[in-house]
Amino acid sequence: MSHNTFGHLFRVTTWGESHGPMIGCVVDGCPPLIPLTEADIQSYLDKRKPGQSKFTTQRREADEVRIVSGVMVDEDGIQKTTGTPISLIIENTDQRSKDYSEIKERYRPGHADFTYDAKYGIRDYRGGGRSSARETAMRVAAGAVARKVVPGLLVRGALVQVGPHRINRDNWDWEEVNNNPFFCPDKEAAVLFADYLDGIRKAGSSVGAVIEVVAEGVPVGLGAPIYGKLDQEIASGLMSINAVKGVEIGNGFEAAALTGEENADEMRLSGNGHPVFLSNNAGGVLGGISSGEPVVARFAVKPTSSILTPKKSITRGGEEVDVMTKGRHDPCVGIRAVPVGEAMVACTIADHYLRHRGQVGG
Amino acid sequence: MSHNTFGHLFRVTTWGESHGPMIGCVVDGCPPLIPLTEADIQSYLDKRKPGQSKFTTQRREADEVRIVSGVMVDEDGIQKTTGTPISLIIENTDQRSKDYSEIKERYRPGHADFTYDAKYGIRDYRGGGRSSARETAMRVAAGAVARKVVPGLLVRGALVQVGPHRINRDNWDWEEVNNNPFFCPDKEAAVLFADYLDGIRKAGSSVGAVIEVVAEGVPVGLGAPIYGKLDQEIASGLMSINAVKGVEIGNGFEAAALTGEENADEMRLSGNGHPVFLSNNAGGVLGGISSGEPVVARFAVKPTSSILTPKKSITRGGEEVDVMTKGRHDPCVGIRAVPVGEAMVACTIADHYLRHRGQVGG
Amino acid sequence: MSHNTFGHLFRVTTWGESHGPMIGCVVDGCPPLIPLTEADIQSYLDKRKPGQSKFTTQRREADEVRIVSGVMVDEDGIQKTTGTPISLIIENTDQRSKDYSEIKERYRPGHADFTYDAKYGIRDYRGGGRSSARETAMRVAAGAVARKVVPGLLVRGALVQVGPHRINRDNWDWEEVNNNPFFCPDKEAAVLFADYLDGIRKAGSSVGAVIEVVAEGVPVGLGAPIYGKLDQEIASGLMSINAVKGVEIGNGFEAAALTGEENADEMRLSGNGHPVFLSNNAGGVLGGISSGEPVVARFAVKPTSSILTPKKSITRGGEEVDVMTKGRHDPCVGIRAVPVGEAMVACTIADHYLRHRGQVGG
Amino acid sequence: MSHNTFGHLFRVTTWGESHGPMIGCVVDGCPPLIPLTEADIQSYLDKRKPGQSKFTTQRREADEVRIVSGVMVDEDGIQKTTGTPISLIIENTDQRSKDYSEIKERYRPGHADFTYDAKYGIRDYRGGGRSSARETAMRVAAGAVARKVVPGLLVRGALVQVGPHRINRDNWDWEEVNNNPFFCPDKEAAVLFADYLDGIRKAGSSVGAVIEVVAEGVPVGLGAPIYGKLDQEIASGLMSINAVKGVEIGNGFEAAALTGEENADEMRLSGNGHPVFLSNNAGGVLGGISSGEPVVARFAVKPTSSILTPKKSITRGGEEVDVMTKGRHDPCVGIRAVPVGEAMVACTIADHYLRHRGQVGG
Repeated sequence: MSHNTFGHLFRVTTWGESHGPMIGCVVDGCPPLIPLTEADIQSYLDKRKPGQSKFTTQRREADEVRIVSGVMVDEDGIQKTTGTPISLIIENTDQRSKDYSEIKERYRPGHADFTYDAKYGIRDYRGGGRSSARETAMRVAAGAVARKVVPGLLVRGALVQVGPHRINRDNWDWEEVNNNPFFCPDKEAAVLFADYLDGIRKAGSSVGAVIEVVAEGVPVGLGAPIYGKLDQEIASGLMSINAVKGVEIGNGFEAAALTGEENADEMRLSGNGHPVFLSNNAGGVLGGISSGEPVVARFAVKPTSSILTPKKSITRGGEEVDVMTKGRHDPCVGIRAVPVGEAMVACTIADHYLRHRGQVGG
Repeated sequence: MSHNTFGHLFRVTTWGESHGPMIGCVVDGCPPLIPLTEADIQSYLDKRKPGQSKFTTQRREADEVRIVSGVMVDEDGIQKTTGTPISLIIENTDQRSKDYSEIKERYRPGHADFTYDAKYGIRDYRGGGRSSARETAMRVAAGAVARKVVPGLLVRGALVQVGPHRINRDNWDWEEVNNNPFFCPDKEAAVLFADYLDGIRKAGSSVGAVIEVVAEGVPVGLGAPIYGKLDQEIASGLMSINAVKGVEIGNGFEAAALTGEENADEMRLSGNGHPVFLSNNAGGVLGGISSGEPVVARFAVKPTSSILTPKKSITRGGEEVDVMTKGRHDPCVGIRAVPVGEAMVACTIADHYLRHRGQVGG
Repeated sequence: MSHNTFGHLFRVTTWGESHGPMIGCVVDGCPPLIPLTEADIQSYLDKRKPGQSKFTTQRREADEVRIVSGVMVDEDGIQKTTGTPISLIIENTDQRSKDYSEIKERYRPGHADFTYDAKYGIRDYRGGGRSSARETAMRVAAGAVARKVVPGLLVRGALVQVGPHRINRDNWDWEEVNNNPFFCPDKEAAVLFADYLDGIRKAGSSVGAVIEVVAEGVPVGLGAPIYGKLDQEIASGLMSINAVKGVEIGNGFEAAALTGEENADEMRLSGNGHPVFLSNNAGGVLGGISSGEPVVARFAVKPTSSILTPKKSITRGGEEVDVMTKGRHDPCVGIRAVPVGEAMVACTIADHYLRHRGQVGG
Repeated sequence: MSHNTFGHLFRVTTWGESHGPMIGCVVDGCPPLIPLTEADIQSYLDKRKPGQSKFTTQRREADEVRIVSGVMVDEDGIQKTTGTPISLIIENTDQRSKDYSEIKERYRPGHADFTYDAKYGIRDYRGGGRSSARETAMRVAAGAVARKVVPGLLVRGALVQVGPHRINRDNWDWEEVNNNPFFCPDKEAAVLFADYLDGIRKAGSSVGAVIEVVAEGVPVGLGAPIYGKLDQEIASGLMSINAVKGVEIGNGFEAAALTGEENADEMRLSGNGHPVFLSNNAGGVLGGISSGEPVVARFAVKPTSSILTPKKSITRGGEEVDVMTKGRHDPCVGIRAVPVGEAMVACTIADHYLRHRGQVGG
């Protein structure tokens, strides 16, 4: 069963609400003897942390992670995983005390307020409770552990579309990703994004985005057909991120418009006799199994529903109201979704790495 | 673990290769007392059956399903499920005896030949073995059972794009879906598709497609956040279908280009005081939980890699070759993917219906 | 979820009823490249087959297994597993056509008739349906596969108690197990068992038994604390066998009466410097992890409830009746439980072997 | 996969080591709207808490539980579950700073030191780390939640054997369980236990025990054949408790010595026409499904391996040594295992209650 857990051999269970005392996760199944410190995790959390620029929510969270189980300092003074569950905790520090009476009764359109209430009959309305994107901090933390499980794995993400604006792929430069607040790999597009998002932000509006995650160093052979396909589980992981409405691998939806000749990935032998692909339309996965090419996934994030324009809605008690979502929000949640997407891809690959080793060995 | 199983409370395990004696599946967790006959299942299998028109593979399979466990004729003479595992079997009847020596050694580009071999060190090369789309017959069979689990559920699929050609959504008519060999809901587009695909077929080429599946009658409240979101698991199920490279829910990738104002689904009360949504950009899912609106999913199928144009590849033994995929193939595998997509959506909803009933009751 | 499936990486799903057309199982997650033929499996099935002596049910089943997926003949002509699901099927051949009207209405005391009906509201009453021990044939078949997964693994079972009579452990001789119809390792006790069971059989009575299973060649380190302990999962597997009411590991219940000094397993180094245990009171498991010593498990089987003495019961319709269970039955189901117990232990060890390899490598 | 998680719909994941900063668990799948406070949980934790008498370890732990997610105060001021994961935390307060250099290198015989090291290559030696019985505090906490899931459920445990001394079942009085430090239901036996254990304690020895858990109010129909049998999963849960070496249901191992006539549970109708059993040899489970009778399980706990008598062992580095386990230990770990056993039974029944509701409804 998977309510709040994902993965099989590398398995992550998250817990906590936006405005509770803390949030956390348990990473179970991590191999032993992997060096792991809080600093290893913190660097990824800092990428996702709110309030890093004017383009993300002004909520101020230190997002300081603590490792409270599953590690041990060895004889050489190096802290390592022990093979037992790794429990990670982040204290919530900026839960502003405020009057929740309004949000408590009114369903914010596009949010999960109505469906949580319809499902459970009770709802933690403070900051979105469990449905808040705050939960994704723990995914990023787990992803930091996952990255260390697969030797040579490199997982990087980038923002490739904001609203109607797409990057120019010819300008792609991974170095640029750290030079702007959007994780944008195209220096020119970053300028455009900044200008566009400034307008969105000032208008109290919001906008959608597309993120691309590329995993290099994925060993050939990962993935478990038929219902544990690598691309399937990456899609599942990405689709579980708040506000994600679409996922694609390799050519994705564009493949629908192509012919077999256009979409083919031909093979040849490299100089040293290894199989090489002459293109990567498949996005690194064939028949659900990794081909050794980079795994390429993209996902679409909808505009957050928190906007200053009043929208028609209803109350818990069954009255019609107009709702305007005040508070500190991201004009484009797609930005902070970049490190989250990376984390989901890293965790999925780590899980399949262990599963493959289990069934096939090596 | 999910190698060949999907679902949790409604759980489907498939087995079998393209050219083995039979294929089958076990449907476990189906509630008892549901009327179920082979005819109930056969009608859906016939929609997927090969050789129904010149636009699908000319392999001739009767695809006659047998229920070999899990049902019992009750006192009124009605065959019903008993709550024990339902085993379904289809005998393979058209495994042409032929010379496999060529395919045995050569990796067909774009197929799973290379990755299966790389993963397992052995591969059933006859007709694609386990990676053959023949496996999807069992999904359709399981889906037929799933449809009966949720009272009032109606799941329908349609082909909305073939290669570069899209339907006109204003022409959408569910009745039309059964009037053409493409499951196309747009009468005019069906004519266009026929003409276009005829050319593709004659050229020994292939082309991709997009399928849309709509589930009506989904009770509000299904879905298990955070990692068992209804849309997440639908995406997972659809992405596990052979050749699928992208999945989206509701507005999907288009939502990336929209503002929060444009993408909002407002709410009002109906005449009898029930909550109603004024639009369904979300595709029936909010925060991973069904809203009561129709669940709308789309998925992109790549062009099959089996084409008559020789493509560069390598052999198992490590030699460079050019491979042309002869044999009986679908010029557009997206057509027969329509009933398969319906089945995956139906199974996922049935699973969540039972899971919701388990956790929340009712 | 585990309705009809056990195991995680080595995973077995069984299906079928006593009087349906066939029974079967799907073994998923088996590593590739393991030589496997029907003969490998049949030899174990023959040990469990009914009608082998006057001490087991006279139902005549050929119990011929077919492998219908998951294997492939390789270039050297050897049939091997491919890593895809292995589907095994046995046709039921001796479902006597008879009048079931009596058993249909009357709950046989001690059987699952009442509880299946109470749970599901419908029940396959023919021969016990799904609750029949016939299902255990598929466990034996799966166990035959499991034995090949772990190099050097030897799993053997023996009947150590029948009714009030226990073997003399000083007489233990594994060779004897195949020399009598009871799998009894004590030549003298076998004579006693024969005499005693003859009386039970002629009286139309039944009696319980205790079986011991010993697994040698279990690598050190298998088992996944805290909730996937090796002994825990062996207990789970054995307790899932029909009529089993107790399970113990090593000293088991006797350990309750001992002091720490008496129950301790001391350690020393062998001549070549390897750790050795000077005793095996623990039964090969410490903290849920295999120690390298033989894994020793025992389980108690209750007397079958099918006896010729009428017993008080009720009907489905709610009337009081006296029920005498006619038909072909085992006077001591514990005998045929020996190969079933072996199979459950073998499957559990195989699963943990793969899980360990997944998490820890090697 | 189940490393550190048990249950399916009611699912518990524990984490933490004996001498880390804290231990905790995540209870996922708990239904919403159940009143739940820390006091509800604390009362059960206090039963298990160390240092309550001279017969348990003198380690002093407050064992104060915090609920840090998954609950919400409703409009009436009552704190209730929300259907989201419930995270429970207990801080470790009595991790004496001491010199661990000895235990670090020496394998304590009978403990998991050797096997953890053999499996993982690293081991948290401080107080047993993850293999410490301290982990069972979280089971008790989760069990307190489980008890509230099934209406009318009453789960109670008792110590029925200490070393060679058994209670007299004719003296059974549930009231007595709270009147002595052993959870002993037999007033006279409690005196005997006290005297006997005093001798064991003073001798620096230890002794085993048998615990019986009785669950009343279990609805008929719980349990999921074939591999999710209620008794199977209870056995699994109990066998996962530290030091447990045997589990039995109903008559258990004694059933092996009985005839079918002796072991039968006859049925009649009650005055109001409901089915009643005239005895409960089966221990409340038939065919893996609850019969409505009390579920009766017993488990055997071995004597703790921590004794003052030196025993032969080896070091991590491969030298022979004699090890005497100093420190604060329980002379009979079976005493504190009583509330732990109750918790495992309660959790298993709660899980099956939800699973049954899922598959069958109602």
